[in-house]
Amino acid sequence: MRVDGREKRQMRPVHIETNYIKHAEGSVLISIGDTKVICTASIDDKVPPFMRGEGKGWITAEYAMLPRATEQRNPRESSKGKVSGRTMEIQRLIGRALRSVVDLQKLGEKTIWIDCDVIQADGGTRTASITGAFVAMVLALAKLVEEEKLAELPITDFLAATSVGIDSEHGVILDLNYAEDSKAEVDMNVVMTGEGNFVEIQGTGEESTFSREQLNELLETAEIGIRELIEIQKQVLGDLVEKIPCSERVGEQ
Amino acid sequence: MRVDGREKRQMRPVHIETNYIKHAEGSVLISIGDTKVICTASIDDKVPPFMRGEGKGWITAEYAMLPRATEQRNPRESSKGKVSGRTMEIQRLIGRALRSVVDLQKLGEKTIWIDCDVIQADGGTRTASITGAFVAMVLALAKLVEEEKLAELPITDFLAATSVGIDSEHGVILDLNYAEDSKAEVDMNVVMTGEGNFVEIQGTGEESTFSREQLNELLETAEIGIRELIEIQKQVLGDLVEKIPCSERVGEQ
Amino acid sequence: MRVDGREKRQMRPVHIETNYIKHAEGSVLISIGDTKVICTASIDDKVPPFMRGEGKGWITAEYAMLPRATEQRNPRESSKGKVSGRTMEIQRLIGRALRSVVDLQKLGEKTIWIDCDVIQADGGTRTASITGAFVAMVLALAKLVEEEKLAELPITDFLAATSVGIDSEHGVILDLNYAEDSKAEVDMNVVMTGEGNFVEIQGTGEESTFSREQLNELLETAEIGIRELIEIQKQVLGDLVEKIPCSERVGEQ
Amino acid sequence: MRVDGREKRQMRPVHIETNYIKHAEGSVLISIGDTKVICTASIDDKVPPFMRGEGKGWITAEYAMLPRATEQRNPRESSKGKVSGRTMEIQRLIGRALRSVVDLQKLGEKTIWIDCDVIQADGGTRTASITGAFVAMVLALAKLVEEEKLAELPITDFLAATSVGIDSEHGVILDLNYAEDSKAEVDMNVVMTGEGNFVEIQGTGEESTFSREQLNELLETAEIGIRELIEIQKQVLGDLVEKIPCSERVGEQ
Amino acid sequence: MRVDGREKRQMRPVHIETNYIKHAEGSVLISIGDTKVICTASIDDKVPPFMRGEGKGWITAEYAMLPRATEQRNPRESSKGKVSGRTMEIQRLIGRALRSVVDLQKLGEKTIWIDCDVIQADGGTRTASITGAFVAMVLALAKLVEEEKLAELPITDFLAATSVGIDSEHGVILDLNYAEDSKAEVDMNVVMTGEGNFVEIQGTGEESTFSREQLNELLETAEIGIRELIEIQKQVLGDLVEKIPCSERVGEQ
Amino acid sequence: MRVDGREKRQMRPVHIETNYIKHAEGSVLISIGDTKVICTASIDDKVPPFMRGEGKGWITAEYAMLPRATEQRNPRESSKGKVSGRTMEIQRLIGRALRSVVDLQKLGEKTIWIDCDVIQADGGTRTASITGAFVAMVLALAKLVEEEKLAELPITDFLAATSVGIDSEHGVILDLNYAEDSKAEVDMNVVMTGEGNFVEIQGTGEESTFSREQLNELLETAEIGIRELIEIQKQVLGDLVEKIPCSERVGEQ
Repeated sequence: MRVDGREKRQMRPVHIETNYIKHAEGSVLISIGDTKVICTASIDDKVPPFMRGEGKGWITAEYAMLPRATEQRNPRESSKGKVSGRTMEIQRLIGRALRSVVDLQKLGEKTIWIDCDVIQADGGTRTASITGAFVAMVLALAKLVEEEKLAELPITDFLAATSVGIDSEHGVILDLNYAEDSKAEVDMNVVMTGEGNFVEIQGTGEESTFSREQLNELLETAEIGIRELIEIQKQVLGDLVEKIPCSERVGEQ
Repeated sequence: MRVDGREKRQMRPVHIETNYIKHAEGSVLISIGDTKVICTASIDDKVPPFMRGEGKGWITAEYAMLPRATEQRNPRESSKGKVSGRTMEIQRLIGRALRSVVDLQKLGEKTIWIDCDVIQADGGTRTASITGAFVAMVLALAKLVEEEKLAELPITDFLAATSVGIDSEHGVILDLNYAEDSKAEVDMNVVMTGEGNFVEIQGTGEESTFSREQLNELLETAEIGIRELIEIQKQVLGDLVEKIPCSERVGEQ
Repeated sequence: MRVDGREKRQMRPVHIETNYIKHAEGSVLISIGDTKVICTASIDDKVPPFMRGEGKGWITAEYAMLPRATEQRNPRESSKGKVSGRTMEIQRLIGRALRSVVDLQKLGEKTIWIDCDVIQADGGTRTASITGAFVAMVLALAKLVEEEKLAELPITDFLAATSVGIDSEHGVILDLNYAEDSKAEVDMNVVMTGEGNFVEIQGTGEESTFSREQLNELLETAEIGIRELIEIQKQVLGDLVEKIPCSERVGEQ
Repeated sequence: MRVDGREKRQMRPVHIETNYIKHAEGSVLISIGDTKVICTASIDDKVPPFMRGEGKGWITAEYAMLPRATEQRNPRESSKGKVSGRTMEIQRLIGRALRSVVDLQKLGEKTIWIDCDVIQADGGTRTASITGAFVAMVLALAKLVEEEKLAELPITDFLAATSVGIDSEHGVILDLNYAEDSKAEVDMNVVMTGEGNFVEIQGTGEESTFSREQLNELLETAEIGIRELIEIQKQVLGDLVEKIPCSERVGEQ
Repeated sequence: MRVDGREKRQMRPVHIETNYIKHAEGSVLISIGDTKVICTASIDDKVPPFMRGEGKGWITAEYAMLPRATEQRNPRESSKGKVSGRTMEIQRLIGRALRSVVDLQKLGEKTIWIDCDVIQADGGTRTASITGAFVAMVLALAKLVEEEKLAELPITDFLAATSVGIDSEHGVILDLNYAEDSKAEVDMNVVMTGEGNFVEIQGTGEESTFSREQLNELLETAEIGIRELIEIQKQVLGDLVEKIPCSERVGEQ
Repeated sequence: MRVDGREKRQMRPVHIETNYIKHAEGSVLISIGDTKVICTASIDDKVPPFMRGEGKGWITAEYAMLPRATEQRNPRESSKGKVSGRTMEIQRLIGRALRSVVDLQKLGEKTIWIDCDVIQADGGTRTASITGAFVAMVLALAKLVEEEKLAELPITDFLAATSVGIDSEHGVILDLNYAEDSKAEVDMNVVMTGEGNFVEIQGTGEESTFSREQLNELLETAEIGIRELIEIQKQVLGDLVEKIPCSERVGEQ
């Protein structure tokens, strides 16, 4: 039994509230246990200078935490005048992950700005951000389709992410909360599509190393969590699900 | 009739949800119409260097907006690497206002960090921040009293703030939403105590000037709104109200 | 009797030396007691990007202190690499105040850059800056008229500012010097036009609050000082006074 | 046949020149094909503030490229005044990787500063940096042992890194040069110990996703390259090799 | 005849007004033609961290221009968030020059902060800064002697600086104004002591090079100007002159 | 005898390796004793905004040290977020020096970016940078001539630089290493052309002053070193030497 009573391969309760922020084209409040993230997707009718004239779109992401999202108050990055390495790493990860399931050619010369703001943190904020941002992005793109600014939804598959880790007590566990994450020997973030393919794997032996066998168990465990997350995405997206060419294997097996 | 159907001296619906963020010593989600602000109060057991050894406490405030709190997405101040003049002005105002109702001597060498993060903006974000932050601060201080780190609540009075303005169509109006604020000729923020005294008055003739008579009407209108806000603060603070030496005049007349 | 022997409603000696800096289109050295500010107005033949094509002009202000303008040396903001909140607040105030008496439409697509550099500080630097900058701006605009780059002076009224405060010993006092300002319980800056209307009121109860009656006395006292300042502006502007549609009430009653 | 004539699982020529910089406690110039990196290890007799008094050491890494290390000149990060997200990501990766094979307790309250400066870039700069920095670090620590500042070498295993990728033409390939990296569909960096365990896996489907089977092939290919790199580390470290408790499996099978 | 009617080896009118800023321990307003600089010397009772405990003092200088000191308005360095290379070069020059005539051992663990703020610029601002700052520094140190914080004036000699240049029309000229400086082929700043020794020579062939013979003529011309400047320093310093062990040769020949 | 056994007017061993970095249009690794600098010249087909349309080219230089180029590790300027005054001074010096021997009109609207990166420092890094950068620049321009992007080499003369100083023990010495530089009383950098003319003289009495006689000896000593450096430049440039209109006097006397 884990610290919060969960089984090793059990996710925390997941809830996604759509259209949480009235101004944004797409938005959600995603909560995974006590981790809560506001994800918004904003549409900008131009692309960054280095992409102009290519007829393709772009997706960029920003991530931040409110100062008191955490146990101890964290100074604001705006007050410090610079963005930390950790924040940049997460922003780049979210952007790459979302771009992998969007047909940028079909999107055309538009930029989707993804903002993930953690209002309460309890582990897994970057994977919750990806999972929530996918829904916000679909909502924003669906709005463009509805307004006839796009012919069809340029989404090629579902996308979700979770964390897995190795704990000296329980071995491989799914969806680590902050207390578990702090003590984990190996920490891995996995981003997968509805098709069951990998988009990104980032595994780190924080205080130790890990073997090939452990890697395999980590990946299998992650897949269980991601399958569950995609189920929940489908529920909140309702009719839009049919417009996404998703696989049967992971999401609906 | 105003754009959203209100009377000239009518506030928008106000709601304060306490203990919104689990990690913070005190926190609220305040909504005034479509303006929503998360206010947290964090206690730090030391004071800034320039105050050490004086036996007095300090209160400092930070304010920010999520990028998509607004109609158009605003670039993050952390990405721009600097805090705007507007943000600094608001932060200084919130800090000054809260310090005016706290007995810093009784607080002792502690700092209260106030964080006001606007998650959705529709006018009046700085006054909503003050009104919400007061409640978050009282909750945090009450926790210190409960944990016997303070002998009594070092609060001297209630505190709330609202905006008033002059509109070419309606004259003096209370609690301007964004659409009204954009068109107002005169814009004034008023911070008042439960006793009915002024803590801060900031009035600006944006596209015009204003006379002494207009000033008087603005101040009377603000007082109506602040009286209402303090009523709501009292409701959500429950039993704590008795521990605040508040006046009868404004809050309960 | 105040610390420097003044009556409660008495200004310090005021002197405005025009054309103090040879390169600037308009410039003054204003001294109010020991407070000395160099104010220059520079004309730029374009407006900021967000205003282009609207046919209107813009006025923007910058404010700084020499490091040793004060009792203790202050580190330069250029060395610290950022502008303080206090500086930004003052810059925004000066800009707003000056814009309230200029017909930006008549000015056309030009920017007036106002620079206020405090070379010696003894309280009231922001109000001295506004009072001096108004004169520098009129001189610069008069030069444009002379050079036939403008048909007429786009000034709608006189403009001056002063500070008032409440002191535990003397009650309401006018034009606080630094020693008085440091001990004041209430501190208020008032910007008024020649017509006697308010442009800006910023009142703060630093260590206390203030009542409606005190507010009224503060405003009456400020008006006395501003009337005097506008008289001095008229003296140094000479023949240009006739080209400004000023009221009789405040300046010449 | 690959663009430079290599087999799919063939590394480019690797050369490590030790003691390249006279001032540094440990240093190498590592070249892998046309990629050349100067790695230095500097010993500092204190740890960062957050670690003081714990009796443990710390390892931190910085990474940079000379402006003309690349095909097109890159502006310096010092001139831009900030470090890019890419640089921060790499710095964090190098630091984590090296810490995984050092017994920080045995190191005691010292910091090892690792500097990796790319003087010529042709793909794989971050993995070359890790592989070279390991050698520089061992040399620096051996010097401490020699000077009797450490009782024994606090190194627990060998460490090297390489990149693998998937190319539409060749499938899985080892040690990508810049031209190959630019066209790869999947890009993966693998850090392994002499024991054959993973320290870090970072795999990204840049323009596509990848299956479990592809992942397996990527990892096997990486292991071949890392085994070869550790052989070369052993050659240049000479007698020091015996003082590192390395495994037989990967390095010497 | 030069553009302003001067002879080739003739200085512009020089005026030094002492005690110009009331708060500073020492201050002057120096004007050399239309170049006007406020120089202040502030005493700080500690030295920078790298010098603590050595029993020696330090002198550091900062230099800035008001935005409208020049023909065209220059953006403030505080607004740009960084100090230009030119400013840094001048600051370092002023500090080095002043340190060369102060016995830092006798000064003891104090820092003299020199601030040179150009309020109007017409060429030669850095040399005017050195010449004026020397006087401000002597005044500040004399105050310390008077207050018995120092036993004697720790000044070893007089110090002044001027510019010389080569002009295609006039050859070698002394004390270039802005118009001359812009067209000069060679530009040289010379800092000398009362003894007639060099402290600093900085000569640059802007659009050309210069021969040994030209160098000799430049140095002789500079000496004439510096001799005159030291005469004026002596006049304004009055009785303090006797306390400075100055040479007869340059200043009083 | 000097600390490293040299005569007073003897240079350290000088070696220039050309085409050191494969991507750069021109590059060298210059070593002067233990001082080693990588100099690259990059060609950009445009000029900075302030020069556009004038038909002239521009040369700009950047200078940096690797953190462990020095005895003690220096924090990176990119990490500190700003470039030091020393760095800026050196960058400006290198740029000015190189521009003095290039016919910018003949170069046309191109920018030459010079990067000087010190990989190991032992005194004289700025003068080694100039001497090496001249060769890198000639190589880059020769490539443009070869590619027929320029009609002829727009170089007007050779250019090299060295340092001289006054040491309490040896008097005037040539080409100071770090140990000598730290103890020198006078430190002077001299940049000269092949013709034997001065481009730049920067002499500073660090802890003392210097007389006219000492200045003469310093300049004669510098000339000996520069003559030798230009000889070496000629050797490595091979056939290109004939395309540079150099003087006989200094380089080949």
